[in-house]
Amino acid sequence: MDLRDLLKNIEDYIDKDVTLEGWIRNHRDQKTFGFIDFSDGTIQEHLQIVYTDSLANFKEIQKVLIGCAIRVVGTIVKSNGKQDYEMQAKEIEVVGECPDDYPLQAKGRPTREFLREIAYLRPRTNLFQAVFRVRSVAAYAIHKYFQDRGYVYFHAPIITASDCEGAGEMFQVTTLPIDKIKGEVDYKKDFFGKMANLTVSGQLEAETFALAYKKTYTFGPTFRAENSNTKTHASEFWMIEPEIAFCDLEKDMDIMEEMLKYVVKYVLDNCSLEINFFDSFVEKGLRDKLERLVTSKFVRIDHEEVIKILKEANIKWEFEPEYGEDIAKEHEKYITEYFKGPVFIKNWPKDIKAFYMKQNEDGKTVAAVDLEVPGAGELMGGSQREDDYNKLIKRMEELKMDYKAMDWYLNLRKYGGTVHSGFGMGFERLLIYLTGVDNIRDVIPYPRTPGNCEY
Amino acid sequence: MDLRDLLKNIEDYIDKDVTLEGWIRNHRDQKTFGFIDFSDGTIQEHLQIVYTDSLANFKEIQKVLIGCAIRVVGTIVKSNGKQDYEMQAKEIEVVGECPDDYPLQAKGRPTREFLREIAYLRPRTNLFQAVFRVRSVAAYAIHKYFQDRGYVYFHAPIITASDCEGAGEMFQVTTLPIDKIKGEVDYKKDFFGKMANLTVSGQLEAETFALAYKKTYTFGPTFRAENSNTKTHASEFWMIEPEIAFCDLEKDMDIMEEMLKYVVKYVLDNCSLEINFFDSFVEKGLRDKLERLVTSKFVRIDHEEVIKILKEANIKWEFEPEYGEDIAKEHEKYITEYFKGPVFIKNWPKDIKAFYMKQNEDGKTVAAVDLEVPGAGELMGGSQREDDYNKLIKRMEELKMDYKAMDWYLNLRKYGGTVHSGFGMGFERLLIYLTGVDNIRDVIPYPRTPGNCEY
Repeated sequence: MDLRDLLKNIEDYIDKDVTLEGWIRNHRDQKTFGFIDFSDGTIQEHLQIVYTDSLANFKEIQKVLIGCAIRVVGTIVKSNGKQDYEMQAKEIEVVGECPDDYPLQAKGRPTREFLREIAYLRPRTNLFQAVFRVRSVAAYAIHKYFQDRGYVYFHAPIITASDCEGAGEMFQVTTLPIDKIKGEVDYKKDFFGKMANLTVSGQLEAETFALAYKKTYTFGPTFRAENSNTKTHASEFWMIEPEIAFCDLEKDMDIMEEMLKYVVKYVLDNCSLEINFFDSFVEKGLRDKLERLVTSKFVRIDHEEVIKILKEANIKWEFEPEYGEDIAKEHEKYITEYFKGPVFIKNWPKDIKAFYMKQNEDGKTVAAVDLEVPGAGELMGGSQREDDYNKLIKRMEELKMDYKAMDWYLNLRKYGGTVHSGFGMGFERLLIYLTGVDNIRDVIPYPRTPGNCEY
Repeated sequence: MDLRDLLKNIEDYIDKDVTLEGWIRNHRDQKTFGFIDFSDGTIQEHLQIVYTDSLANFKEIQKVLIGCAIRVVGTIVKSNGKQDYEMQAKEIEVVGECPDDYPLQAKGRPTREFLREIAYLRPRTNLFQAVFRVRSVAAYAIHKYFQDRGYVYFHAPIITASDCEGAGEMFQVTTLPIDKIKGEVDYKKDFFGKMANLTVSGQLEAETFALAYKKTYTFGPTFRAENSNTKTHASEFWMIEPEIAFCDLEKDMDIMEEMLKYVVKYVLDNCSLEINFFDSFVEKGLRDKLERLVTSKFVRIDHEEVIKILKEANIKWEFEPEYGEDIAKEHEKYITEYFKGPVFIKNWPKDIKAFYMKQNEDGKTVAAVDLEVPGAGELMGGSQREDDYNKLIKRMEELKMDYKAMDWYLNLRKYGGTVHSGFGMGFERLLIYLTGVDNIRDVIPYPRTPGNCEY
């Protein structure tokens, strides 16, 4: 049986015999008995297995090393030790050996840098076991939130011939023999008959679904070929991009707030052991931080007001806050501390935001919003979308975009177009917030960064 | 409110006023009244809205065309017409116009080929509305099945430097300026410092998670650069690849059978309107086909036995069945008819299967399985994985594979390796089975095929 099912219903199994299959995480052997720290990976918790020289293969078992796979039959008993219960083994069978060059030995705590080098083994450590289970549960929480509310899950195309943001370095996808190209590329001969790239966002395509299903969301991989080696940049990451018709910026913020609280609460409820582990070993106060988020009321404030507060603050900034400009990390931090909680900063200067955002009547700002969260900075960004056909074309012309190639996008404004909004959340950014693990390379099973594409 | 919430609780709303926002799907106007066929995309069903010349803007509303977005306030009443209920409008506001060049007019049923040309509008038709909602609900059912049973959802890397199957045409991913390459390519200068491709399968990486978490599954996009233009091939498609430690081929089949039945039943229960639609307009008998699958017992039979049955059949085959060889579509069809239900064909000839499959003791076959389903052919394929380090190396040598580059994969057999198995299911193949829609281009929102990369 799975250790998860055993431990979650432990009272039903006291004094009963069960069979478990899993791995030895630690092993202490004495003359006439031994202790095995057992895990099968189905739950963060381990089980202590006690064996004695009554085992037929006692001498063999005494020698088994960390990492071995075993099958064990034994009785679950209440324990006098640190644990509340343990297993008294009746039979232990080694089903997979593990030599002593196994990199995950019990002595010393391996650094995260070292574990990145053996990424294929790191989910066997307590830290990464917890991280990637939270990744799985948080992903499910996101699906559950949207599906329970009637949203349609939209698989945005990964290979694309259009660049959503009109910015950002993209990866090219090709089947051309690139060592044989001489000068100009004849894309008619490429697989799709045109130049193709990996998507940087599924938003524009998601809008087509919002105007058919009213409520839709994407959850899939997106790509940026930025040559930046920071703790928060990866070349391949997963994004959630909901898109809702008949929804203005205020309603959009309602959904952002409700969804985030739902997901955080779901993880608190369903990954309690993992959160405790992070709270003890990764980020002191993590649980409290997450619990406070769930009960807090998010502030909503205009960008212009934020600049005013920053300017009035008695602080020597590294970057001076300015009206009409973006804000820096230090400003994000200050503003969440100022309001003692999450802050929606809305109505941003038009010139620093994307072409598709709804132009406000002041002629200077757009109906965009960023969510700033204590201890994490920007966690989500959203906007009401420009639904005026002519204004959208005019804006694309100003930005020298090829709007004719995007007639389908423009036509959404022509054929029963309506107020609609959406937002994007980087899944790994959420995971960094949920786990306290501060490097994006440690919340992705096999991260891709410049110069790095192992496995 | 959402039409979905209204219609699912219709009895609570009879004789009450509600506000709806959505689109006009059809419109018949008479002298003093009119009928609007209304949909907001949150449910397959439409609502009939009746208005009369008591509306302040009656003349304006009489003129509104198909595709317009409207906001309507009205009373839900029991109806004498074909519908059980309808709305008597008190206010109708046009919030988004739609001109008469809108391609989705009520007259005539547009062909699927025509709709592919306007893929961004097709989810507004009844057929595609149903297809992509089933896609969404089926995706969720898959997540729910695995999450409820403690599987960890694993995001396999999309960009990869290793080719799982050792076969199959791959897409190359690069940031090199390919028009400036002269002869040999210096991959040190490419983004990842080596040649990189789009993944064809996440299985090998998923095995690393199975040996840490016991139970894992992938659900993500995979890619094949095959130049085939058939109804069942797409260059970009989604795959589900579960992988389970301490699981042999028999248990693997148990899981395949249980999962498939769960997902089909979930869709029957949660997309009843959509299944009825397909049953009426796409594939007669679809509901019955799906219901029979849920209650049937899947047959398990060796490949060798299947060949024997095929040879003994009194049929003139296009392709003669042979021991040691693959089977053709006509054979798949015959064998599911022979057993009147789904059939697991297991223990396949080693030479026609992948290197990682567990070699049986007969020296000729591997512990592989394909699931054949009436009316769909092969729906899933799985295998027990070779867990013998030396046998695996020997097999890779025979196939001239660079096994040294895959030391991490081999090491899974060395460090606490154990019996483990898994399977793969093409998500679109499942959708074709669930909907009766027989072209893969019609079950993917924005399909990618040779020469085709729109949106």
